[in-house]
Amino acid sequence: MTVSNALRANILTEALPYIQKYWNKIIVVKYGGNAMVNGRLKDAVMGDMVLLSLIGVKVVLIHGGGPEITEMMNRMGKKAVFMDGLRVTDRETMDIALMVLAGKINKNLVRIIENKGGKAVGLCGIDGGTIKAEQLDEKLGFVGQVTKVDTGLITDVLDKGYIPVISTIGCDSEGEIYNINADTAAAKIAGALKAESLILMTDTSGILMDKDDPSSTISKLTAGELQDLIKRGTVSEGMIPKAECCIDALNYGVKKVFIIDGRIPHSILIETLTDEGAGTMLVQK
Amino acid sequence: MTVSNALRANILTEALPYIQKYWNKIIVVKYGGNAMVNGRLKDAVMGDMVLLSLIGVKVVLIHGGGPEITEMMNRMGKKAVFMDGLRVTDRETMDIALMVLAGKINKNLVRIIENKGGKAVGLCGIDGGTIKAEQLDEKLGFVGQVTKVDTGLITDVLDKGYIPVISTIGCDSEGEIYNINADTAAAKIAGALKAESLILMTDTSGILMDKDDPSSTISKLTAGELQDLIKRGTVSEGMIPKAECCIDALNYGVKKVFIIDGRIPHSILIETLTDEGAGTMLVQK
Amino acid sequence: MTVSNALRANILTEALPYIQKYWNKIIVVKYGGNAMVNGRLKDAVMGDMVLLSLIGVKVVLIHGGGPEITEMMNRMGKKAVFMDGLRVTDRETMDIALMVLAGKINKNLVRIIENKGGKAVGLCGIDGGTIKAEQLDEKLGFVGQVTKVDTGLITDVLDKGYIPVISTIGCDSEGEIYNINADTAAAKIAGALKAESLILMTDTSGILMDKDDPSSTISKLTAGELQDLIKRGTVSEGMIPKAECCIDALNYGVKKVFIIDGRIPHSILIETLTDEGAGTMLVQK
Amino acid sequence: MTVSNALRANILTEALPYIQKYWNKIIVVKYGGNAMVNGRLKDAVMGDMVLLSLIGVKVVLIHGGGPEITEMMNRMGKKAVFMDGLRVTDRETMDIALMVLAGKINKNLVRIIENKGGKAVGLCGIDGGTIKAEQLDEKLGFVGQVTKVDTGLITDVLDKGYIPVISTIGCDSEGEIYNINADTAAAKIAGALKAESLILMTDTSGILMDKDDPSSTISKLTAGELQDLIKRGTVSEGMIPKAECCIDALNYGVKKVFIIDGRIPHSILIETLTDEGAGTMLVQK
Amino acid sequence: MTVSNALRANILTEALPYIQKYWNKIIVVKYGGNAMVNGRLKDAVMGDMVLLSLIGVKVVLIHGGGPEITEMMNRMGKKAVFMDGLRVTDRETMDIALMVLAGKINKNLVRIIENKGGKAVGLCGIDGGTIKAEQLDEKLGFVGQVTKVDTGLITDVLDKGYIPVISTIGCDSEGEIYNINADTAAAKIAGALKAESLILMTDTSGILMDKDDPSSTISKLTAGELQDLIKRGTVSEGMIPKAECCIDALNYGVKKVFIIDGRIPHSILIETLTDEGAGTMLVQK
Amino acid sequence: MTVSNALRANILTEALPYIQKYWNKIIVVKYGGNAMVNGRLKDAVMGDMVLLSLIGVKVVLIHGGGPEITEMMNRMGKKAVFMDGLRVTDRETMDIALMVLAGKINKNLVRIIENKGGKAVGLCGIDGGTIKAEQLDEKLGFVGQVTKVDTGLITDVLDKGYIPVISTIGCDSEGEIYNINADTAAAKIAGALKAESLILMTDTSGILMDKDDPSSTISKLTAGELQDLIKRGTVSEGMIPKAECCIDALNYGVKKVFIIDGRIPHSILIETLTDEGAGTMLVQK
Repeated sequence: MTVSNALRANILTEALPYIQKYWNKIIVVKYGGNAMVNGRLKDAVMGDMVLLSLIGVKVVLIHGGGPEITEMMNRMGKKAVFMDGLRVTDRETMDIALMVLAGKINKNLVRIIENKGGKAVGLCGIDGGTIKAEQLDEKLGFVGQVTKVDTGLITDVLDKGYIPVISTIGCDSEGEIYNINADTAAAKIAGALKAESLILMTDTSGILMDKDDPSSTISKLTAGELQDLIKRGTVSEGMIPKAECCIDALNYGVKKVFIIDGRIPHSILIETLTDEGAGTMLVQK
Repeated sequence: MTVSNALRANILTEALPYIQKYWNKIIVVKYGGNAMVNGRLKDAVMGDMVLLSLIGVKVVLIHGGGPEITEMMNRMGKKAVFMDGLRVTDRETMDIALMVLAGKINKNLVRIIENKGGKAVGLCGIDGGTIKAEQLDEKLGFVGQVTKVDTGLITDVLDKGYIPVISTIGCDSEGEIYNINADTAAAKIAGALKAESLILMTDTSGILMDKDDPSSTISKLTAGELQDLIKRGTVSEGMIPKAECCIDALNYGVKKVFIIDGRIPHSILIETLTDEGAGTMLVQK
Repeated sequence: MTVSNALRANILTEALPYIQKYWNKIIVVKYGGNAMVNGRLKDAVMGDMVLLSLIGVKVVLIHGGGPEITEMMNRMGKKAVFMDGLRVTDRETMDIALMVLAGKINKNLVRIIENKGGKAVGLCGIDGGTIKAEQLDEKLGFVGQVTKVDTGLITDVLDKGYIPVISTIGCDSEGEIYNINADTAAAKIAGALKAESLILMTDTSGILMDKDDPSSTISKLTAGELQDLIKRGTVSEGMIPKAECCIDALNYGVKKVFIIDGRIPHSILIETLTDEGAGTMLVQK
Repeated sequence: MTVSNALRANILTEALPYIQKYWNKIIVVKYGGNAMVNGRLKDAVMGDMVLLSLIGVKVVLIHGGGPEITEMMNRMGKKAVFMDGLRVTDRETMDIALMVLAGKINKNLVRIIENKGGKAVGLCGIDGGTIKAEQLDEKLGFVGQVTKVDTGLITDVLDKGYIPVISTIGCDSEGEIYNINADTAAAKIAGALKAESLILMTDTSGILMDKDDPSSTISKLTAGELQDLIKRGTVSEGMIPKAECCIDALNYGVKKVFIIDGRIPHSILIETLTDEGAGTMLVQK
Repeated sequence: MTVSNALRANILTEALPYIQKYWNKIIVVKYGGNAMVNGRLKDAVMGDMVLLSLIGVKVVLIHGGGPEITEMMNRMGKKAVFMDGLRVTDRETMDIALMVLAGKINKNLVRIIENKGGKAVGLCGIDGGTIKAEQLDEKLGFVGQVTKVDTGLITDVLDKGYIPVISTIGCDSEGEIYNINADTAAAKIAGALKAESLILMTDTSGILMDKDDPSSTISKLTAGELQDLIKRGTVSEGMIPKAECCIDALNYGVKKVFIIDGRIPHSILIETLTDEGAGTMLVQK
Repeated sequence: MTVSNALRANILTEALPYIQKYWNKIIVVKYGGNAMVNGRLKDAVMGDMVLLSLIGVKVVLIHGGGPEITEMMNRMGKKAVFMDGLRVTDRETMDIALMVLAGKINKNLVRIIENKGGKAVGLCGIDGGTIKAEQLDEKLGFVGQVTKVDTGLITDVLDKGYIPVISTIGCDSEGEIYNINADTAAAKIAGALKAESLILMTDTSGILMDKDDPSSTISKLTAGELQDLIKRGTVSEGMIPKAECCIDALNYGVKKVFIIDGRIPHSILIETLTDEGAGTMLVQK
């Protein structure tokens, strides 16, 4: 479809109130799922980061990378073992996770952003002592949970105009390294930054009334209502931890949390710069 | 026409390289003609100012207002007299010009910008000693020409995030006030600010090869080529002073000057944020 | 009278403790009445502003201009109508008020200050969204009352070393413009700035015990005592609204309010830089 | 050996002039070889970084990691191929290099520094567009040479008090990633930063007159003298590229270059904070 | 004894945690007694000041000078008279004290620091109105006690990187000058600065359990325990006022107070940068 | 004589252009002679310093004190010996000079300024390494000449709003202290600061055509003309070194040098803030 420049100008103009709403505010984006696997989607998300950053939004990009870790383990002849959905992480697996997350995935995201004319810095929770962690469960090995977020380095680089791209790896007080679930770390980081919003990119169209019917997406929920949906079993299985992260983030002080569909190109822009909600919006009340 | 949000997002994304090009650069817009008379166009131009300012462009808005001055003179039973296209300006006329330009037009533009969520300050060349002037011709009375631009106040308010809206009235060293042609003042101000571009809004579609054929717009010219067109008579009558302002601005150090069609809604955005030129672009060489 | 330079030096020296008292403090001057009509007095007041600004006082000049509005209405064949001392202001009258106040009077004051070597910026309450207003009474049309003062722009220009000269015109949330009584606006602005003092220039020698005897000026009053004088009828007629402004300003947090005699040359300097009170001083208690 | 605290105090005192010499100056340390393999030495070097940083030196740590890349390739069943001492780097090898350098080695160095109470950020040349590169030789694949160093990010993090730890990976204008020899990258970075000194940690005791006699270390050489030694064959084989890096660094504006013995614990401190040279010092002339 | 550079490096490394503890913290040193008389000790103390300052500690040096005052009085044929250990100070004696303290001793300390490459400014409590005082006892003449410390000038010079060297002379509101006991003034200044520690240099090895047995030094005491020791008479005579200063300093908010032995070279460094306590440490509890 | 406040206000107003001329400029005042002996004059000069500082002039006060040094030597039974007008200064004399200048005179001037509500810091050339000196002539002992002025500390304290009061004592690279003639030091300091003016307070009414006729004061001279007067013998004896200082100061870059009569109260204010010249003005040409 050909779009006239008059229409382009009109559309830019209509984005004005949305740009004003987020100007100089912090948005934490948890990036993962299909949008990370599909090259074209990845490219679109990184472009969205550059655009948001340029128009004055302070974006923080947090990524996971479970499938790539598994793939690398396979290549090295190591079998990935999971317990209650969490990867059993021995020291060698932790090493692989560090390489894949902080080396390959992280720096490649930075590369794409820089190549599009943005300014980015690839960090993990070890840098600047950003994420302090402790062991979650002895049986899982080097799987950690966040004990404290030090936002110093993140705000230092935001202030200098860079987009921080963060792998969710943390350290305990002994210097031991842990791999941390990216959703929960994103919630903690967004909370510590008192972010305006946390956007969780998923492979669903949001919280559904009927998990088998994508058209049943609930557009807005309070933390309390979401809790109810969990109790009643409407939200179930894999969505439960994500839902709990959302509730936590709201409790930590994040104003709004969005669960959006990362399979749609530019869903972040649609969510932030148009009148359309691209998934489910969660608020404290 | 209904525009899907996916398309909106796409279009925003496609504006990215244009936003990058102007980010943190100064654009001086000389606003006048039909875009100032037509309420809907005026609204659109002010919206464009807010949008450009928000996405990091340092915009300076300079306006004229000849027709309103004439109208106010009529209302007060005073006949407007012109000599070579310039208004003969006795002290009472100067008073009226000051009231209409710096009072009515200027503050109403500020009002529209503020009402759209922008930040603006209404100034004239007297404020902060911005425009130093002298009498152009004794016969014309208080018609002035710029002798010096002090950019201190303009950059002070730009640095604090305001859009300066400027009436082109200046003072001589005795404190005598002069009305100054807005095109020439805009060229001087853009030059003193070493602006990235100067945009002149007109009621034409640009410099035309055949002045009776709007479709003969020349999309790009060097200062030298424009000079030639003036000599050869292709550019004639009312367009000559505007053309000379453009050449002056380029000589003062402005990188690019655009003569655009103010009758088209959002022509400024089309010029700056799309791949379409909305009139004639002039460069040094 | 010839004054020796030895005497000059002595007198400068004796001003020292007064300069120290106001150094880096904000003084809001409400300028009006005879001091605005008489050219020599106007010149003297503007000189006082430059002097105070130079020796480190942060001065804010707020002006009215009722008589000039009436005069311009007359020139345009429009009759001024008053109701309880307030001008009935239809849209056309509002237009005239804007032109006269923000165009003619305001920029001319800036011109005089700049010509004396001072740095000034002419603002109205529309600029930077400084004065938010609402309609006072439907019958009066576009007469407004202040709902909120945003001091951002005023402190921005004070910080950069300019004297803000302010016309008391405000906007409501719809962008509708209102003319606002300069005394009440000055009290609100001084309060919002937590000014050290508010000086109201009047055509009286202060609050009088006997309104027909200028020698009965009361030199110092508390807000409570002034309230009593109003109740008892000692303060009456035209002085009542001024007196109420003073009480309001003290309630908003201004340390001292002065009602001084604008008919005396340099009465502001006499009030601030000598041991003589030039009228009535009001304090909270 | 027991050291009395009196002696400790004396020794600290004697370090004073050396601390003064480097205070607020930039020292770039190229870290590699045995000091990177041996855990105890690695620990000592990171401690030295923290100490230097704390006493006011701006240290930049640049590391290589060839052996670890080879080891990881072996683990993944890939054979490392070298041509003239340079690794033939296909896309998969580049991926491994990125993971090992920017993921494993880099973040582990940051971890040790942070664990010792220092503040560090792990970067590679992709971050902030720090290292711009191009292909060195088609036959070598993704082996790059530096075309430009942008010191913006490095000085941003130095200014905020962090030690930048840098993997020498760069990008070309297409966003293609290249692995770059750490010695040459360190020389380029030190030059771009106009560093006070560049310290190359090696597994030798410096430049030797007789390469088989460690006691024949030359303590000081000019760039010209070193060039002569290369011509005469005194410096040969593996030391030639290092020697050329040193000459380049001096040409780029680095004041002093040191080739020190990384096998000696705290050789950096000995070189910088005592009267003993720990290897060979090179100066322009 | 010859110390190898390897040992030097080791010792510097071992100082790291101590440097980290005091980095960017304020340490107030009360300098006096034997360390001020003995040239070699004086030299060592000033060197310690430079070293601490260079490695990021904000040191403030406060000195007394009773013996030199007495000596100068003798030279001028004036007899020093004491009452309860305090010098009876007539106007002439005050003059001598000012000259000896703020002229001779103070500037000579600054000279030594500057000569060692440090940056110092010699101040007394009159400068910047730092110490406000009042008469302690009419019978003592110009002996004062501190009524208020204004830390403005001290923090101004610390921020600019200078070591303030302070003579404890103060002024009352009339401009009358008083000599003030250096221990009590140091306690007040350290309190006003919320210093990390106050170090009192004495000619003892600290607080002793048996005042005749130097080996009976108590290494750590709380304010309460010290109070008890005074009551029980363990601390007696000349040590009582010093002990009371320590308790005061802790009450004013100083974290730790040290009474150290100034007769030992570099006792300040031993106390701050090694694991050895060089006297008695006092804490609130 | 009674002065009305109206007159006071007028006089303040008339000082405006003079205040504007010196605003934010540096004036170095060399203070000495009768104005330093006479208590009332001293008080007046210090008041002038506070006033000038408050109205935005950056004043630096430099003082001598020869007579007090001689007096103190006498009190201590030491005979002052002069050679060509310069004091022969053995180590003991140097000690006395340091005490009298940097202790007694300097801190008492600071005391008076602070007592008048000004902010002052008493410095000598040792502080901050401000004055580097060397021996002038072996026969004179510790009499020095300036080799270098480091203006760092002076501008640091000026920036923080203090008046630096400076004793002209300097140090050589060995830390040896020298007493330096205050006139020559003032010229060097004014030059290094690129001061707007240097004011030398003397016991004469300026440069005289006839040294026995005070009414023969020359109001303005160029450096060349002054040189001629020296050659011709019109300027002679004690005035020659002062005259040479003035020429030097002009050569170092000071814009104007004034020789004024310190015996007249407030002669500094008369010189700077009125249209009267209070002595002789010297300019480069």
